[in-house]
Amino acid sequence: MTDAVETQHDAKTEPGIDPIPWAVPAPDAAAFTATIARQATLTKPAGALGRLEPLSAWIAAVQGTCPPRPFTRPLLVILAGDHGVARAAGTSAYPPEVTAQMVVNFVTGGAGANVLARQVGATVRVVDVSVDADPGYLDAFDPRVASRRVRRSCGSVDREPAMTVAEAVASIRLGADLADEARADGADLLVPGDMGIGNTTAAAALTGLLTGRAADDVTGRGTGIDDATLARKRAAVAQAIDRGRPAVDDPVALLAEVGSPDIAAMSGMLARAAALGLPVVLDGVISCAAALVSRRIAPGADAWWVAGHRSTEPAATEALAALGLDPLLDLGLRLGEGSGALVAVPVLQAASATCREMSTFADAGVSDRDQGD
Amino acid sequence: MTDAVETQHDAKTEPGIDPIPWAVPAPDAAAFTATIARQATLTKPAGALGRLEPLSAWIAAVQGTCPPRPFTRPLLVILAGDHGVARAAGTSAYPPEVTAQMVVNFVTGGAGANVLARQVGATVRVVDVSVDADPGYLDAFDPRVASRRVRRSCGSVDREPAMTVAEAVASIRLGADLADEARADGADLLVPGDMGIGNTTAAAALTGLLTGRAADDVTGRGTGIDDATLARKRAAVAQAIDRGRPAVDDPVALLAEVGSPDIAAMSGMLARAAALGLPVVLDGVISCAAALVSRRIAPGADAWWVAGHRSTEPAATEALAALGLDPLLDLGLRLGEGSGALVAVPVLQAASATCREMSTFADAGVSDRDQGD
Repeated sequence: MTDAVETQHDAKTEPGIDPIPWAVPAPDAAAFTATIARQATLTKPAGALGRLEPLSAWIAAVQGTCPPRPFTRPLLVILAGDHGVARAAGTSAYPPEVTAQMVVNFVTGGAGANVLARQVGATVRVVDVSVDADPGYLDAFDPRVASRRVRRSCGSVDREPAMTVAEAVASIRLGADLADEARADGADLLVPGDMGIGNTTAAAALTGLLTGRAADDVTGRGTGIDDATLARKRAAVAQAIDRGRPAVDDPVALLAEVGSPDIAAMSGMLARAAALGLPVVLDGVISCAAALVSRRIAPGADAWWVAGHRSTEPAATEALAALGLDPLLDLGLRLGEGSGALVAVPVLQAASATCREMSTFADAGVSDRDQGD
Repeated sequence: MTDAVETQHDAKTEPGIDPIPWAVPAPDAAAFTATIARQATLTKPAGALGRLEPLSAWIAAVQGTCPPRPFTRPLLVILAGDHGVARAAGTSAYPPEVTAQMVVNFVTGGAGANVLARQVGATVRVVDVSVDADPGYLDAFDPRVASRRVRRSCGSVDREPAMTVAEAVASIRLGADLADEARADGADLLVPGDMGIGNTTAAAALTGLLTGRAADDVTGRGTGIDDATLARKRAAVAQAIDRGRPAVDDPVALLAEVGSPDIAAMSGMLARAAALGLPVVLDGVISCAAALVSRRIAPGADAWWVAGHRSTEPAATEALAALGLDPLLDLGLRLGEGSGALVAVPVLQAASATCREMSTFADAGVSDRDQGD
């Protein structure tokens, strides 16, 4: 328990994250209300488009306009980082080298997330936050991807802090900067993506701590581990939860203890995106865990989020319930990278388009039920 | 019960539907197997794309090639028809005039299905099979849409046959012709759409008869009816189920008794599409009911279908279970028109694209789990 105390964030003596503007505006309630009213005038039975109808109102509210517009500049930001716990406690089916190899795969356009991003017209940005590789691994591809790294890998959260408080602050600041850059570049929809062998272990620990669930309730098979590896992973998550408990009320200290630089960066990115009024489609278990931390940093941030899909990882379901978000898709995905959120983007576009383009009863000369014979 | 006997289809004395080539080929098993094998080589944990992986194999099988191609020419065929039961038994929240008004809305591009078809690049074809309107209602728009009408509206299935056996045969033949035309026009994916005030009553009766469920299990609120209307609708469905029971083993007689021209046409279209090897995304309760009839006409047709979504109508869930199909989406839609199937098309495209475009472990130099350190 002394580790947690030693790494406790002290806002009085460190710059910390407080200078960052985290205040979250509310989405446009008038646009929301106008969209609900507009839905009642469109040539369909009331409510017949199901979840697309409230979804269209959410889109209008986050865009501040009724009817909602199409999303024309979606942006996927993949935050990559390694996790000491994978190597130290053996919680993954894949070697840590895969993280760096997959970063190269993202840069060269061959990963699942690249393919799915092309399907929905999303730009892909990859940031090496804490990959366990010599930075030169990207020299032949795009050295900028590793130029902002906070540290190389991180501590094994079952036995030691993931990082120092200063590194957690730096990670959160990096994420906030990425949100500012997304807005400056004109992105109108943000998809957080993750890559990191071992990252579901940290996400499970964070989710357990922030939802009050035990390790067995939040630990899943990640990349597809066998029973023996699952048993090791459950033990590691349980130890991490014990270690993190004293820090549960301080997001920075919590991330330093049992999180990771990449998840800290995602937490900062989600929080700052909400402060900027940039809507987000959450992906799977990593982004849901980051979202739980995020709304501690920036209360009200969840008003700017929609859940793209339900990952098969149990922590995703626990986090979604705690966030009060009902995912749009449930297709058994567990790839990460932002993949599930990207598959959900066309559902958002369908909700927006129907609300914007359908004719009204009056314009089309169609009888509404109140005019029935 | 005498009605059913009198309208029984007699293949010996009528041309019937037997001359139509209904024999259904099996999708390409080699392409299916090759796709499953290919999925194991792509840069992701095995199975991490969830349902997208077997879906990609289904696409490869119906296309007869691995890896699967994108669907470039999806076609929505909306079959419109009125239902005597809506007027006679008062089972809908909307006046029957809405059917013709909505056909005009489809032709002028303002309905939900038009918007959703544009989102996925689908062509829209509308066919008035049995609308209750003077055919001249389309003169100012597109008279061809009503040029193939089988009859005007149909009988109230709670008390009388929907149509004669000859009309049922003509409807099924019309649907088969539409499938042949879709193939001739180069369509590579068929989406059946429906429009018809009262059509969920006939669909519920057909589904009840073909799944062995009672009226209360298959009757829903359709366009959003109140409790009193629901009670009338349940009674009408129960009467229709009683009337249709003697015809349950003869698809043509069954459609004549308790179906409708538009649902008969959809049954013929789905059966013939399968015979042609044209894959189909099923929509909601109408297409699921037609699918149940269809596979009686063309055994094995279901191998060519995927279920786009789960409509809120209880008969849709019963029919999907009987068909053994697990829908891709569950978004609370109950619009019909093919809308739910259209929202699912991007999921098919995502499944196809990931399988086709993702790099392999070997090509990307990414370590697979078996190579772990």
